[in-house]
Amino acid sequence: MADAVYPGSFDPVHNGHVDIARRASKLFDHLVIAVYDSPSKDILFSTEERIELFNESIADLPNVKVVAFSGLVPNLAKEYGAQFILRGLRAGFDFELEFEMALMWRSLDQDVDVLCMMSSLQYQFVYSSRIKEVVRLDGDISGLVPANVYTALKEKFS
Amino acid sequence: MADAVYPGSFDPVHNGHVDIARRASKLFDHLVIAVYDSPSKDILFSTEERIELFNESIADLPNVKVVAFSGLVPNLAKEYGAQFILRGLRAGFDFELEFEMALMWRSLDQDVDVLCMMSSLQYQFVYSSRIKEVVRLDGDISGLVPANVYTALKEKFS
Amino acid sequence: MADAVYPGSFDPVHNGHVDIARRASKLFDHLVIAVYDSPSKDILFSTEERIELFNESIADLPNVKVVAFSGLVPNLAKEYGAQFILRGLRAGFDFELEFEMALMWRSLDQDVDVLCMMSSLQYQFVYSSRIKEVVRLDGDISGLVPANVYTALKEKFS
Amino acid sequence: MADAVYPGSFDPVHNGHVDIARRASKLFDHLVIAVYDSPSKDILFSTEERIELFNESIADLPNVKVVAFSGLVPNLAKEYGAQFILRGLRAGFDFELEFEMALMWRSLDQDVDVLCMMSSLQYQFVYSSRIKEVVRLDGDISGLVPANVYTALKEKFS
Amino acid sequence: MADAVYPGSFDPVHNGHVDIARRASKLFDHLVIAVYDSPSKDILFSTEERIELFNESIADLPNVKVVAFSGLVPNLAKEYGAQFILRGLRAGFDFELEFEMALMWRSLDQDVDVLCMMSSLQYQFVYSSRIKEVVRLDGDISGLVPANVYTALKEKFS
Amino acid sequence: MADAVYPGSFDPVHNGHVDIARRASKLFDHLVIAVYDSPSKDILFSTEERIELFNESIADLPNVKVVAFSGLVPNLAKEYGAQFILRGLRAGFDFELEFEMALMWRSLDQDVDVLCMMSSLQYQFVYSSRIKEVVRLDGDISGLVPANVYTALKEKFS
Repeated sequence: MADAVYPGSFDPVHNGHVDIARRASKLFDHLVIAVYDSPSKDILFSTEERIELFNESIADLPNVKVVAFSGLVPNLAKEYGAQFILRGLRAGFDFELEFEMALMWRSLDQDVDVLCMMSSLQYQFVYSSRIKEVVRLDGDISGLVPANVYTALKEKFS
Repeated sequence: MADAVYPGSFDPVHNGHVDIARRASKLFDHLVIAVYDSPSKDILFSTEERIELFNESIADLPNVKVVAFSGLVPNLAKEYGAQFILRGLRAGFDFELEFEMALMWRSLDQDVDVLCMMSSLQYQFVYSSRIKEVVRLDGDISGLVPANVYTALKEKFS
Repeated sequence: MADAVYPGSFDPVHNGHVDIARRASKLFDHLVIAVYDSPSKDILFSTEERIELFNESIADLPNVKVVAFSGLVPNLAKEYGAQFILRGLRAGFDFELEFEMALMWRSLDQDVDVLCMMSSLQYQFVYSSRIKEVVRLDGDISGLVPANVYTALKEKFS
Repeated sequence: MADAVYPGSFDPVHNGHVDIARRASKLFDHLVIAVYDSPSKDILFSTEERIELFNESIADLPNVKVVAFSGLVPNLAKEYGAQFILRGLRAGFDFELEFEMALMWRSLDQDVDVLCMMSSLQYQFVYSSRIKEVVRLDGDISGLVPANVYTALKEKFS
Repeated sequence: MADAVYPGSFDPVHNGHVDIARRASKLFDHLVIAVYDSPSKDILFSTEERIELFNESIADLPNVKVVAFSGLVPNLAKEYGAQFILRGLRAGFDFELEFEMALMWRSLDQDVDVLCMMSSLQYQFVYSSRIKEVVRLDGDISGLVPANVYTALKEKFS
Repeated sequence: MADAVYPGSFDPVHNGHVDIARRASKLFDHLVIAVYDSPSKDILFSTEERIELFNESIADLPNVKVVAFSGLVPNLAKEYGAQFILRGLRAGFDFELEFEMALMWRSLDQDVDVLCMMSSLQYQFVYSSRIKEVVRLDGDISGLVPANVYTALKEKFS
């Protein structure tokens, strides 16, 4: 039995995140999506909103749940009995940062391992920060996020 | 139940490869290490030798086996009933090439997915090609390969 | 007839920007340099100042004009009847960010295309942010910016 | 009036190349696709075949023609009266090599400039070399190349 | 006689910095470690604390001293009669930024040169910013910093 | 007293190499330029020719000499009593390869260290391989190589 945590800010969740979660749900017995309970500045949606938005997007996946977290990721993994930390990788910026984090996590806890899934082609260049910027300027990003997130974004900026 | 194939040239297998295989053996029910049956030029060890060297390195892992392959990797996965292709990632050169291959594999077969494990720090900059070059010049790479591979390399160049 | 917009912060315009604008003025019938009307924090020169500084640098080019903009770049292109968005590329940081923006722009409007010009060798490592930092510390950057910008920078920090 | 040459090996042309050519045909008065008349080793299709395959793919574009070339790219541009060299950019490997070539070309001839178009998302990771490798192993790449190229590839490897 | 300055924020110094300083002390007659006297926001330790922490880590090296600086790095070099600026390089993010700074420094003063030492393998992915983040969350980074820095970090966050 | 070896193929030496050697001659007591005595295929100039061409370019530097080498670089350093291996870095391709080599060298011999100098701006994109390709096609690279190398290249291809 292998379990994993999938940590992130998810402010908000987009289709690339959902795609990773769906693919990972076929590999792991349990997948815990962990929404970083970050201080409110630079964050558009509250932790509760971010959890709810992701939850609605994966409601049909019985072995996936969404929680808040605020400490170190390896501790989070241990708390949920997960042997693996899951990360999505896009071409470009992500890689070096992910490497640096993965090596830090493994130096903090030798018993945890880090697994990466490469983003599907259609989500290669999809970033939450850019999505927020575009919606703020009234651009149409309906193809990049789940329907519930689209509605929530429109409400935030209306 | 999740199974994976781990394809490569492994000419020869080094400690970074063995590390990835050991870590992956904890995640997958079955792991099939697939040695690319490449034409002999530019290859130091025959396919049979490369299979045997890897086999000896993971003999204690009951859910791992080593085979030869010569076709497309997604077909290999299908043949062995594996839903995942496993790849190791080092900082630097590997990433873009891996991305390009992963997207090609997934375009060839939508049912197969690609998983990456990041190399442990001590194997970040370990490459089979450089190992062969150093041994050829009589340098000591005993810390970078399993003992049986060390012996085999010394014999090849003696 | 092909027209282009060339968007940026230009805080302030430097010789690399002017070089791109001059080279592009030979390709396009009309080139619209669009200065991002950004909020004042983190910006040294006001939008009006930035427009004026760039305008003075390309005053001899009859098919180039400088305007302010505040919305989405593809909408800006449409507003000016431009089929192309122009970007300058330097080695290093620029590329991945440009890619991500270009793909977002094209997903927002299929009718607009993105063209890149590589910076000339002498401007490869010239960044507005570094120029401001150096002038603030009283360093000499007279070779990196037009004369009017040099004067304006000295005045800002005197 | 602005003209461009678009040089490459095109062994064979794929959908990413055709996409760049179509988009560029809207920008330039004349676009000359220049197929590098390279020595036969490492090349699957002869220069004549590569020209014909590309020609069939852009037959509906009156301002585009396909020719062979064997010298320096800036001389090619001069020969055809083109002020610009066009290159397609994909995320990843292409960028640094393109930069190095562009700066060499401009050092050879100050009157020529280099323009880049970023590959569309669906062709980001499409490479002629990988296509040949996959077809050789009987994989299906029908979505990545024009129909005439698909037929030609199947014939080569049958 | 060759002297060097080694500038940085060192907030706080970690084992990778100390390693670079020790290795460089064998090359240069005098090595001046220059702690950037930055404004207090985003800085955990005061300039005085950062100087003291680094000083304690290299107390056994007679040809190394630690000072504060606040101007341009080439001016700092000149002030101390140093012909070289020393920088440490890690795989990943560092390189392009270092290049851009090195070329700016050399454009400001043709008489100064920039030397780089590559971080040792065990410090490849060690960053001050990540260390502070982990200590803040009560993670154990005792293997990444000198003992005095470890104590100082624990005190700051207790 | 600090000495260094500067290894490379130098086929042929170009102005970027000479620039690095000149700058390094101010840092080290003795600098040994080591020309890799590589097998003749893929090499344009013989080892003797490459040594002579580099020698002529640095004849005015009394503390620099040029030799052939054929083994491991750390052994070369030891043979000449050098504590440092010198490498030049250009933006782009060089970095990751240099890192991998540097870490291998230091794993082979803990007593040797690797120093890097960043190429001057005007030589950032100058590569021996591209120079040969351009001369072969009769392009003018007189600004990129010393006069003696220019003459030697013209003779090779006449």
